[in-house]
Amino acid sequence: MTKPSGRPRRRAPGAGDRASRPSGMREGLGGGHVEGRRAVRELLRARRRRIRRLVVSTELDADPLMDEIAALAAEARVRIEYVSASELDGLARTSAPQGVVAQAMPVAEADVDTLLAHTRAFVVALDGVTDPGNLGAVIRTAETAGATGMVLPRHRAAGLSPAAVKAASGAIEYLSIARVAGISAFLDRATRAGLWTVGLDERGATSVFELAVGEGPVVLVLGAEGRGLSRLARDRCEVVAAIPMLGALESLNVSAAAAVACFEIARRRIP
Amino acid sequence: MTKPSGRPRRRAPGAGDRASRPSGMREGLGGGHVEGRRAVRELLRARRRRIRRLVVSTELDADPLMDEIAALAAEARVRIEYVSASELDGLARTSAPQGVVAQAMPVAEADVDTLLAHTRAFVVALDGVTDPGNLGAVIRTAETAGATGMVLPRHRAAGLSPAAVKAASGAIEYLSIARVAGISAFLDRATRAGLWTVGLDERGATSVFELAVGEGPVVLVLGAEGRGLSRLARDRCEVVAAIPMLGALESLNVSAAAAVACFEIARRRIP
Repeated sequence: MTKPSGRPRRRAPGAGDRASRPSGMREGLGGGHVEGRRAVRELLRARRRRIRRLVVSTELDADPLMDEIAALAAEARVRIEYVSASELDGLARTSAPQGVVAQAMPVAEADVDTLLAHTRAFVVALDGVTDPGNLGAVIRTAETAGATGMVLPRHRAAGLSPAAVKAASGAIEYLSIARVAGISAFLDRATRAGLWTVGLDERGATSVFELAVGEGPVVLVLGAEGRGLSRLARDRCEVVAAIPMLGALESLNVSAAAAVACFEIARRRIP
Repeated sequence: MTKPSGRPRRRAPGAGDRASRPSGMREGLGGGHVEGRRAVRELLRARRRRIRRLVVSTELDADPLMDEIAALAAEARVRIEYVSASELDGLARTSAPQGVVAQAMPVAEADVDTLLAHTRAFVVALDGVTDPGNLGAVIRTAETAGATGMVLPRHRAAGLSPAAVKAASGAIEYLSIARVAGISAFLDRATRAGLWTVGLDERGATSVFELAVGEGPVVLVLGAEGRGLSRLARDRCEVVAAIPMLGALESLNVSAAAAVACFEIARRRIP
């Protein structure tokens, strides 16, 4: 299911253009190693990061996505190195690079105050998600739900590892991502800045379908796999909401829960 | 985030009790090899399948989930074999068995007519999802969204492999799963049985948030990774709906899309 090649339809609001990124070199978020066809296509389409190397396997079946990658690389004057499948696998850092590996400048960190200043902010904050696949999936989901930014804790959380980058499928090129020392201090700061803070937790008293979400700026806080929100973060949320569990199981996985909550907020905000 | 041990709060409607399963031996769906703590806990809690073997590593850190597994095994008189971590890894068929492996009778196939006869049927049909992790994630999501059944194509689709079973986190113990020769013929049958058929596809003309979902019986059809719904299946759906993409990316992954669509239908059906 591939759309015609070209630039993305529209950028996520607040996903700062290159020009609005601070010129002083901020510590990168990682994410320099990019594998997977969708992730590499978006790296080329977004044109926000300098690409140092683009390697493609010579042993691939025809795929419109690979054609797009070749066309975008030509347009951006990025040379493609063709190598054997086994050589490509030697460069790969995930189990399924899908025949393409790129190396680029790291993703620049966004500024927290800029994220909070957005008049229609929709910031997704992760309280200790550790699995890279889940981190990447949540970044992809947040971007498609129109989030204006994401906040990750600087320590004790998954960074933009190759597996996270691949699972994000290119979302890291568009979504502004900031890092903070701690999520609970960030929530205090968000509250002072006038954002509404909503935590998602199985033990939440409010149904996520009954949130009084409006047009105003909002932070959605998602907890770690299994453990959910930390007590410190939970105590700082104005509302703690749960997704109603309508079967026998007690919980959704973190990326499915993120999808339900992000799109529930998105649905209320669609003009 | 562990609830007190015991039986699940409530069973998904239509997730047939052992007694309602056909007594004639139906071909199993697979799923006999169960790894992962949540999957094994639900296998023990649900008590729907005979357990042939339960193996636990002796080298695990304390975890309430493992305590629950031990208590449920004692209650069900299933003997636990304790083995070294390396021996357990030798038995494992996924990369992260979480220190526990069980072998049980295969999951019994549900009957399609029974699924369609449910007065408030909410059936999720998969049109060619091939990745076992995605299959398992969608089964888990459907079960928690209160789906009354699931339909998988008999061929060219992922079966209940160990990776799918682990990702389903126990949902296969509760959700009735039927297999059909082809999804498009199944959709004809569902339409004749009076169910409303909704396809989910990026190219859908209707927003999933504007579906006229009511209390009536419904089939939600989800397409494969990347390709989406097959043309044959799409043509047979009464409505083809899309999740609005509000950022720069063009698509969600299949399990995130399933979560959004399943819970959007669930939300409308909550009494």
